[in-house]
Amino acid sequence: MSEKKYIYFFGAGKAEGNAGMKEYLGGKGANIAEMTNLGIPVPPGFTISAKVCDAFYKNNNSYPEGLKDEVENNLKHLEELTGRKLGDSKDPLLVSVRSGAAISMPGMMDTVLNLGLNDEAVKGLAEKTGNERFAWDAYRRFIQMFGDVVRGVPHSAFEEKLDQVKEEVGVELDTDLKVEDLKRVVKLYKEVYRKHTGEDFPQDPKKQLWASIDAVFGSWNNERAIKYRQINEIKGLLGTAVNVQSMVFGNFGDDSGTGVCFTRDPSTGENIFYGEYLLNAQGEDVVAGIRTPQKLSTLKDKNPEVFQQLLDVREKLEKHYRDMQDIEFTIQQGKLFLLQTRTGKRTGLAAVRAAVEMVKEGLITKEEAIARVTPAQLDQLLHPMIDPNAKAKMIPLARGLNASPGAATGQIVFTADEAEKWAKEGKTVLLVRKETSPEDIGGMNVAEGILTSTGGMTSHAAVVARGMGKPCIAGCKDVVITGKQAQIKKRNFSEGDWLTIDGTTGEVYDGQVKLIKAGITGEFAEFLIWADEIRHEAVRSTIKQKGFLVRTNADLPRDAKVAREFGAEGIGLCRTEHMFFDEGKLEIFQEMIVADDIATRKEVLKKLLPLQKKDFTGIFEAMDGFPVTVRLLDPPLHEFVPKTTEEVKVLADKTGIPVKQLQAKIDSLHELNPMLGHRGCRLGITYPEIYDMQVQAIMEAACEVEKRGVKVFPEIMIPLIGTAKELSILRENAESVIKDVFKNENRQVEYKIGTMIEIPRAALTADKVAEYADFFSFGTNDLTQMTFGYSRDDAGVFLPDYIDQEILERDPFQVLDQEGVGQLVETGVRRGRTRKPDLKIGICGEHGGEPGSIDFCYRVGMNYVSCSPYRVPIARLAAAQAYLRNK
Amino acid sequence: MSEKKYIYFFGAGKAEGNAGMKEYLGGKGANIAEMTNLGIPVPPGFTISAKVCDAFYKNNNSYPEGLKDEVENNLKHLEELTGRKLGDSKDPLLVSVRSGAAISMPGMMDTVLNLGLNDEAVKGLAEKTGNERFAWDAYRRFIQMFGDVVRGVPHSAFEEKLDQVKEEVGVELDTDLKVEDLKRVVKLYKEVYRKHTGEDFPQDPKKQLWASIDAVFGSWNNERAIKYRQINEIKGLLGTAVNVQSMVFGNFGDDSGTGVCFTRDPSTGENIFYGEYLLNAQGEDVVAGIRTPQKLSTLKDKNPEVFQQLLDVREKLEKHYRDMQDIEFTIQQGKLFLLQTRTGKRTGLAAVRAAVEMVKEGLITKEEAIARVTPAQLDQLLHPMIDPNAKAKMIPLARGLNASPGAATGQIVFTADEAEKWAKEGKTVLLVRKETSPEDIGGMNVAEGILTSTGGMTSHAAVVARGMGKPCIAGCKDVVITGKQAQIKKRNFSEGDWLTIDGTTGEVYDGQVKLIKAGITGEFAEFLIWADEIRHEAVRSTIKQKGFLVRTNADLPRDAKVAREFGAEGIGLCRTEHMFFDEGKLEIFQEMIVADDIATRKEVLKKLLPLQKKDFTGIFEAMDGFPVTVRLLDPPLHEFVPKTTEEVKVLADKTGIPVKQLQAKIDSLHELNPMLGHRGCRLGITYPEIYDMQVQAIMEAACEVEKRGVKVFPEIMIPLIGTAKELSILRENAESVIKDVFKNENRQVEYKIGTMIEIPRAALTADKVAEYADFFSFGTNDLTQMTFGYSRDDAGVFLPDYIDQEILERDPFQVLDQEGVGQLVETGVRRGRTRKPDLKIGICGEHGGEPGSIDFCYRVGMNYVSCSPYRVPIARLAAAQAYLRNK
Repeated sequence: MSEKKYIYFFGAGKAEGNAGMKEYLGGKGANIAEMTNLGIPVPPGFTISAKVCDAFYKNNNSYPEGLKDEVENNLKHLEELTGRKLGDSKDPLLVSVRSGAAISMPGMMDTVLNLGLNDEAVKGLAEKTGNERFAWDAYRRFIQMFGDVVRGVPHSAFEEKLDQVKEEVGVELDTDLKVEDLKRVVKLYKEVYRKHTGEDFPQDPKKQLWASIDAVFGSWNNERAIKYRQINEIKGLLGTAVNVQSMVFGNFGDDSGTGVCFTRDPSTGENIFYGEYLLNAQGEDVVAGIRTPQKLSTLKDKNPEVFQQLLDVREKLEKHYRDMQDIEFTIQQGKLFLLQTRTGKRTGLAAVRAAVEMVKEGLITKEEAIARVTPAQLDQLLHPMIDPNAKAKMIPLARGLNASPGAATGQIVFTADEAEKWAKEGKTVLLVRKETSPEDIGGMNVAEGILTSTGGMTSHAAVVARGMGKPCIAGCKDVVITGKQAQIKKRNFSEGDWLTIDGTTGEVYDGQVKLIKAGITGEFAEFLIWADEIRHEAVRSTIKQKGFLVRTNADLPRDAKVAREFGAEGIGLCRTEHMFFDEGKLEIFQEMIVADDIATRKEVLKKLLPLQKKDFTGIFEAMDGFPVTVRLLDPPLHEFVPKTTEEVKVLADKTGIPVKQLQAKIDSLHELNPMLGHRGCRLGITYPEIYDMQVQAIMEAACEVEKRGVKVFPEIMIPLIGTAKELSILRENAESVIKDVFKNENRQVEYKIGTMIEIPRAALTADKVAEYADFFSFGTNDLTQMTFGYSRDDAGVFLPDYIDQEILERDPFQVLDQEGVGQLVETGVRRGRTRKPDLKIGICGEHGGEPGSIDFCYRVGMNYVSCSPYRVPIARLAAAQAYLRNK
Repeated sequence: MSEKKYIYFFGAGKAEGNAGMKEYLGGKGANIAEMTNLGIPVPPGFTISAKVCDAFYKNNNSYPEGLKDEVENNLKHLEELTGRKLGDSKDPLLVSVRSGAAISMPGMMDTVLNLGLNDEAVKGLAEKTGNERFAWDAYRRFIQMFGDVVRGVPHSAFEEKLDQVKEEVGVELDTDLKVEDLKRVVKLYKEVYRKHTGEDFPQDPKKQLWASIDAVFGSWNNERAIKYRQINEIKGLLGTAVNVQSMVFGNFGDDSGTGVCFTRDPSTGENIFYGEYLLNAQGEDVVAGIRTPQKLSTLKDKNPEVFQQLLDVREKLEKHYRDMQDIEFTIQQGKLFLLQTRTGKRTGLAAVRAAVEMVKEGLITKEEAIARVTPAQLDQLLHPMIDPNAKAKMIPLARGLNASPGAATGQIVFTADEAEKWAKEGKTVLLVRKETSPEDIGGMNVAEGILTSTGGMTSHAAVVARGMGKPCIAGCKDVVITGKQAQIKKRNFSEGDWLTIDGTTGEVYDGQVKLIKAGITGEFAEFLIWADEIRHEAVRSTIKQKGFLVRTNADLPRDAKVAREFGAEGIGLCRTEHMFFDEGKLEIFQEMIVADDIATRKEVLKKLLPLQKKDFTGIFEAMDGFPVTVRLLDPPLHEFVPKTTEEVKVLADKTGIPVKQLQAKIDSLHELNPMLGHRGCRLGITYPEIYDMQVQAIMEAACEVEKRGVKVFPEIMIPLIGTAKELSILRENAESVIKDVFKNENRQVEYKIGTMIEIPRAALTADKVAEYADFFSFGTNDLTQMTFGYSRDDAGVFLPDYIDQEILERDPFQVLDQEGVGQLVETGVRRGRTRKPDLKIGICGEHGGEPGSIDFCYRVGMNYVSCSPYRVPIARLAAAQAYLRNK
């Protein structure tokens, strides 16, 4: 490409540009050139490079030298090729002037059609086409569009005049206006133009052309275009190109028409030709919705020749572009013209199916298939959704945080107990709470979905719901709960009323809405296996990583099984605290907590040991052959103690501790900032007997299942480490317990002891911490809390403001903050590996299932990510893409 | 020093070693050599270098080659010099074998006296001294000491026999035993020795000597010595030296004696000769306490010649060592011998007075004077203390955290209101609370001291008490408060009972104990001015720092005045939240908080503006000529809302908001982790009108006082910044308000806008934050909370365990954790300066008054530290020392 070449001609089967020149020609221009070269019929024209736009703005709104001549030359070439002249009174050349940047910005920039018409040319057009009405209608449209787009004359000013004429002649539709009426409209339009601009409507087509080019370049920096680029993070473009193209018309009768089609079904991905068209119509008629477009398949009968041409084009384009295309065409008097082709947008279902089928058709490679489907598209396939037809007709009652994807509908209940009771009666329930707490697990488990009025994306409800794969809307402020009543924007809902939630969008709907179930199709499974093949390629081809595995966060055998079905390669986080809320265990654990001396605590813990052991055997069996990382007790003890007077009394009776004394003990556990309090390994230090019991249970369970032939790889994870010394003490304690277990069981099982890195100080001193760790697992939920100083339970109050005011691009609890938190992660990995080059490192925070964060984890050299079972397929895809992107 | 030389001889006015060789000869050996060279009479002997100890342990417990010969040669030299021989039956040489490391470890290692006695030599000693009883007593002591120290024979086994003989002959005191009795004791002692060791007591003095040398070197690694070095962080020593020295005896009659003295008074620092002695006694008699030692001044009359010798030695030593010396001496038959000299330990008072006077005497430089006084010594001078005489006789009732130094005594009350009521009645009160909160300020202000049963070193009570310079004990768990009763270890105390607290040690005493008031003496003031001169030298001589100033944290004009008197050079942190608790202001602020719309809030804030402005004019006036950093509102709004139903009702009446609605509003402000919640600049973002009012008040106040001739340098500080964008928005808001103020006032005042760096993310992205900051002030309280994940309000539960188990060396809220938090501080400073090389940087956390942390702040290049008014003198000293230490 010459530095000085600003314009690229296309026409008669030959173009100066090609599809690779999007940066300069924009998406539209580059593909028009490409199609021209492919021999596909495209109306001829030329594209003014985006370099001109760049130079225009850099050079104080003036065009580079030589541009005028280049436009003249190209215009001359176009006139020669078409045999028509701009403004000609016999057979005038009409052109469109359209914008087109390298990245599509639909509707953001300006377009002028039918350019070249004036008082003379309109006659030429009438004569040439034999259709006077068509010519005058085109002229009046041109004046209106030019006035609006190029000179800023209000659209309404023209519409007023049109309405005036329609009224005068007594018609309702534009199409009922006669030639004479249209001539009068043109006259009135010219007056409007003069009134608003102080000038006559320009009769010189060259002036029309330059004014339009100016306008298109100018529109690059109009307010809405700037805003659009900000929102969509479109950066680094030169500007827009300008396409000047000879006009074709689909409204020349029944042998003409216009349409839009996809080379495959964009909803399902099925390999059928899919689209709509209208005969005797222009593109804007389709948009206006006055006539209903026809299915493309009907064109076969109406105009088999043109249809065959279209089929040929479809095949040619797919073979050439190796992807589904979205094309615009016009048929002018039986002749097909392509006006645009681009990669077609599609649903998740279509993306996967088309990708898999294209691989089988030999069109693309597996790597291309994997790179082409976004994790968000995959997510759609994993959850039930509201029937799109139903959704289109409804207005949401309220909107909260889209805390866990999928849709659910049910009768609302306000307590977990009610949820369980109603569910037992066979009812379909939706649990509506201010916020949930660990005791609500039972009710959450039976509910179709969860709706909370407070709490953020990582509140208890959100985390647990994602873990269960259940739809959840959190922090929906408009829901005001009082007893067994919820008020939503002044409407009252009682227990038993139906609501529907869409956890994917955060929308709450009134009543019982029709849902569509999710399913893993054959292509989906196949696709994910390819993703795994590519991901495991990383193991073989990179030195940095010894693998990049996808594990799951699962606390129960049931969840572990689901995760394995979804392709999890082990458990990265098995929380033990939820286990203590099980029936029978909570009461024992409470006894332990309120005991005053270590002897009593040890005695009580003995009762817990067999129960805890059973939890682990189930999980080890479910994860046969894969590692299981068990995190020792993490939450503060006060989360487990009785809350109500009634519950306190029960515990008092059981333990024989006087109520007053018991209440005092419970009160003494209260903390002002529990997130920064006596939890995690701090409990392990002050109550070593708890961790000892847990380690014993884990290792006894491991020995037991191994005897039964299960391949078990227990990994004991110690949470909330802030200093190397904590880990050294707790590791020593654990090893001493393990030694005893091995002795008693008379067998040894391979095991690892490692730590969460979730306290900033642990990341900063990771070289020292690594001394005592076989592995690191980044707990980026807590790490984000501490690094930002945000409590995930409380940040919901200001985070929306923060995102509105663009202080934060995204919720850092959803998408890892690479700039800040990421520094600590990177430091932790680097320093850990400085001390132990082979240190196994992973992530088990919520970010382990978020594609952008997975890419980051891959780049800093982690060995695995771990996420909730329902995110595992997404993580498998994202991990494969991370490898492809960075290899 | 030759590599191969292991032994250094001293005697007859000449020594091979000197005071500079402590590393090899230990403190004792090096000073003995030095004194010998100075011509001071010292019993001759030799020192075996600590290099031998090092080699011994490195070489598998064996001595380096050639050592045996070197000991033989030195021993021979010693025998020639003294004219006596080891084990001689006429005039035996007796020696002591003493340990002595480079750093004193009192009582940790072994000593053997009277070595050289055996069955023959005892007769020689009797003959030579003409005192048979003395000789046999010395022999039995030697057997006992050798047996115990060298061979591990239990002390009690010897004592039993001694008691047996005393019983047999019917005497009570050792001194009443006759020669024959002592001979029998020797016989029995030898039997004890044989029984426990299986060997006869060694008669060969060479064997005695080597066994003793072995024992002393062995004692370097005994358990208590290792523990002592750990606790006192003594590292990097080679080991201990061994001093073999000819014995002198102070118990040869009334022309003999022994004593300990200081070259100045170690309590007051007065330049007088201060000490005690006993005639006809050995060192151990003084220790045993059987006889009461005499004041040194009385020796002048009893033995003017010896006294004059002592005076000469005193002068010689002080001139030579240029510091107060602590010396041990023995007089043997009218002849003075010095056994030890070392730098004398002293009180804070003495340290300052001696240092100042020595400068005036021309003995030392000002720099030396400053380097010599520890900040802890200075602290003693700043607070009242319990009379040491009274304290010696008391046992503390309980012990808590020494949260704010100084002693206080008073009648206990349990609420702030009672404190104010009782104080009005003229009573002296001590406020005892579970914990304090901002509403208690009034009561805290009138109390002599504060005692809380919960909370840590940086709890509200602790921080406010330190700010007020009031004694405080926090987190004293043994105090159990119920209503107007406190139970302390099963004893009940009621309102009005007297208690005394020592905030310096954390001890609580029963009753009203006598206190000694604090005072800044003339020397003290002088000393601090020198410290400032040295510190300000830093400004002139270093390029890195543009000064290293000491500012204060003060919220009230009164505190600001105190701080100026203490030498503060500006305010580094003026918290504005305390201002809102003032009478009249709280109610208005509450109205603002519960208002639902911005218009009402703005209206209410208008009422606060003049009151807030008045707060600032007072502070600006008090700090005339110095900068004042005002921090905008930091705590979450729920700290300000009514707590009781009664208070809610009052506010409901006032605002006209129904109680139920008001209570709901208040409840909605509740946070689970307020420390990580909606506070600091997050309030500024969501309620910009609050910060706008504060900025307006600050700048209007600045303009007003400037009109009156006050030199004012307001610095607006925005707290809790986590992202650069927050600061950019809030800076823009503030500047817009300031512009309006300047316009209205028709004048401009120099100002700065900066931020706290207290969120880890702010430190990590300091380069970006610096873009919008004129200064950084490290808020290391919060930074420590987030970096460790410790809530300072809750950590009191586990921190004591953490320090016991040596997980943490010290409470990180008191002493900056340089390893972890320090990394973030250093990163913040470095990145901030990368963006703005001249960025002004300071610290305003609690650590700003802690000497070790001040040194760190100096080293990372901060421009100032800021601390509570009562810590300012300490910070001035610590800052000067930081400069001296690092220059």
